[in-house]
Amino acid sequence: MDTAARSPALISWNEGPAQAAITSFVARVTTEGGPDFVPPADRIAVFDNDGTLWAEQPMYFQLAFALDRVKALAPQHPEWKTQEPFRPLLAGDVKAFLAGGEHAIVAAIAAAHSGVTTEEFAGIVREWLTTAQHPRDGRRYLDHVYQPMIELLDYLRANGFKTFIVSGGGVEFMRCFAESAYGIPPEQVIGSQGKLRFEELDGKPALLKLPDIQFVDDGPGKPAGIQTFLGRRPIAAFGNSDGDLQMLQWTTSGSGLRFGLIVHHTDAEREWAYDRQSPVGKLDQALDAAAAGGWTVVDMRKDWKQVFAFESTAGAQRQALPTTR
Amino acid sequence: MDTAARSPALISWNEGPAQAAITSFVARVTTEGGPDFVPPADRIAVFDNDGTLWAEQPMYFQLAFALDRVKALAPQHPEWKTQEPFRPLLAGDVKAFLAGGEHAIVAAIAAAHSGVTTEEFAGIVREWLTTAQHPRDGRRYLDHVYQPMIELLDYLRANGFKTFIVSGGGVEFMRCFAESAYGIPPEQVIGSQGKLRFEELDGKPALLKLPDIQFVDDGPGKPAGIQTFLGRRPIAAFGNSDGDLQMLQWTTSGSGLRFGLIVHHTDAEREWAYDRQSPVGKLDQALDAAAAGGWTVVDMRKDWKQVFAFESTAGAQRQALPTTR
Repeated sequence: MDTAARSPALISWNEGPAQAAITSFVARVTTEGGPDFVPPADRIAVFDNDGTLWAEQPMYFQLAFALDRVKALAPQHPEWKTQEPFRPLLAGDVKAFLAGGEHAIVAAIAAAHSGVTTEEFAGIVREWLTTAQHPRDGRRYLDHVYQPMIELLDYLRANGFKTFIVSGGGVEFMRCFAESAYGIPPEQVIGSQGKLRFEELDGKPALLKLPDIQFVDDGPGKPAGIQTFLGRRPIAAFGNSDGDLQMLQWTTSGSGLRFGLIVHHTDAEREWAYDRQSPVGKLDQALDAAAAGGWTVVDMRKDWKQVFAFESTAGAQRQALPTTR
Repeated sequence: MDTAARSPALISWNEGPAQAAITSFVARVTTEGGPDFVPPADRIAVFDNDGTLWAEQPMYFQLAFALDRVKALAPQHPEWKTQEPFRPLLAGDVKAFLAGGEHAIVAAIAAAHSGVTTEEFAGIVREWLTTAQHPRDGRRYLDHVYQPMIELLDYLRANGFKTFIVSGGGVEFMRCFAESAYGIPPEQVIGSQGKLRFEELDGKPALLKLPDIQFVDDGPGKPAGIQTFLGRRPIAAFGNSDGDLQMLQWTTSGSGLRFGLIVHHTDAEREWAYDRQSPVGKLDQALDAAAAGGWTVVDMRKDWKQVFAFESTAGAQRQALPTTR
């Protein structure tokens, strides 16, 4: 492998401690004969998705999908218009709906994610990703993947790493875009799961998505999900919130050189600024743990030259899409 | 890729319809520009383990492990000696224990597979695999992997396939040998799972194995497991029992060229002969489905020149290990 192939540029990263920590770690674990060398098969890197690989404000994108889906399904469920928890949502008051808390959100997720086959569901998600617009800028949700993280994934893979998503998001949802957006194939996406039922539909075998939860891949569920799906302890973990704390602890407490990184959302202009008090992507305990454990903390405002790919041609693209919604 | 690299020999296969069906399928899906070409990323092949990649008589090897483990743990549980279901087992009467049916077996599996961390468990399984002897010939259980299937795995991988295990066996158990025995890395092993709990033990994060079942990867659970873990529908599936029926249906009902294969245990001399009436590895509905669906059925006695690697030097090795147990 020549040097060029091993080092796709981290061109959206400013020079600084975060970028230096990444390249130093990679150099050490890939130096054959060195004290920290790790064979390629064990170069496993795990990435949270929401807030780490793409944005998560003003609400998780999968929740935005679920709310759109509830609205699309409403004509088939006339009772939703008058019943909680969907009544305020269908009356156009998203805030009042979200005030229903976890109960309301779980109901929306279940309604949006079940009653269809896995293949139908993938089609619905792909359609939504193509058409739905983010409320802040009218762009597609997929335009809000972080350019520096895409470069980081490429850089790690060029250095023999196998990259996995380990996210609280739904596994069937993320697989609809993980390969095209991140270069991560379906079998390397670990996430929360609903139950599936195998049955014959119109004489053909199908997998029907049920409303019941099979596994929640968040918090302490992340190390469990890693063990169950992956079966190896990663040597590098990347997250942004308290939901990633145990994944980072599990990864960095293994023997040998390990790497933990937290994306700290500090850029209210280009993205969002939030941490300890945020209802979405709360970063509190994990920020303290990062300081104690020597994990790298990315200061998004300082460390990232560019956040989204569209910034470079922002003017031109902004005109192409309406920003109202 | 030169021809030699693409065709590791299926030298333990006799020439015949099974071997011809395999090589014809592989030739068709790998012929670029041909009508049946499948890009490498979609060349997913799934293999059952017990009875397909290694033997499963006179009882599933993992059950033999569990019974040995219950005996080893018995001194810490003096009550087991007088209580069902372990009383007959600890008195040396395995048959009477097994007559306790699913309840007894589940209890043994739970006792053998929980109360330790994932890392401790892997150590226990590896130790057992090194020392335990199969009751029929005194050889290690791992000596009972099928040589023709090892060659088949190699052959498929040399032709761009990604090979997965999809088994009712425990995922943590199989990962202890899948890489060394089959060349299948941990992240490509899908199996039944117990629940895990993340906790601190002696100040270090650990995953504790709990007795509760998380997911049963058997029968209709196999397509569900494939979808949840793998996220793609395979193009080739290999099994040997009714527990593989739905996996074969799911695989072969996709669009494009598909391949289904069943290993039929017809060799009472070199291995075992059993099918429709067997309590272990019952092959009844899936044998009928194979005829109806055009799946390839391997007649072990006729199609396999050699079953186990040790056969070639059988005399010499038989002397090396005691055959009593």
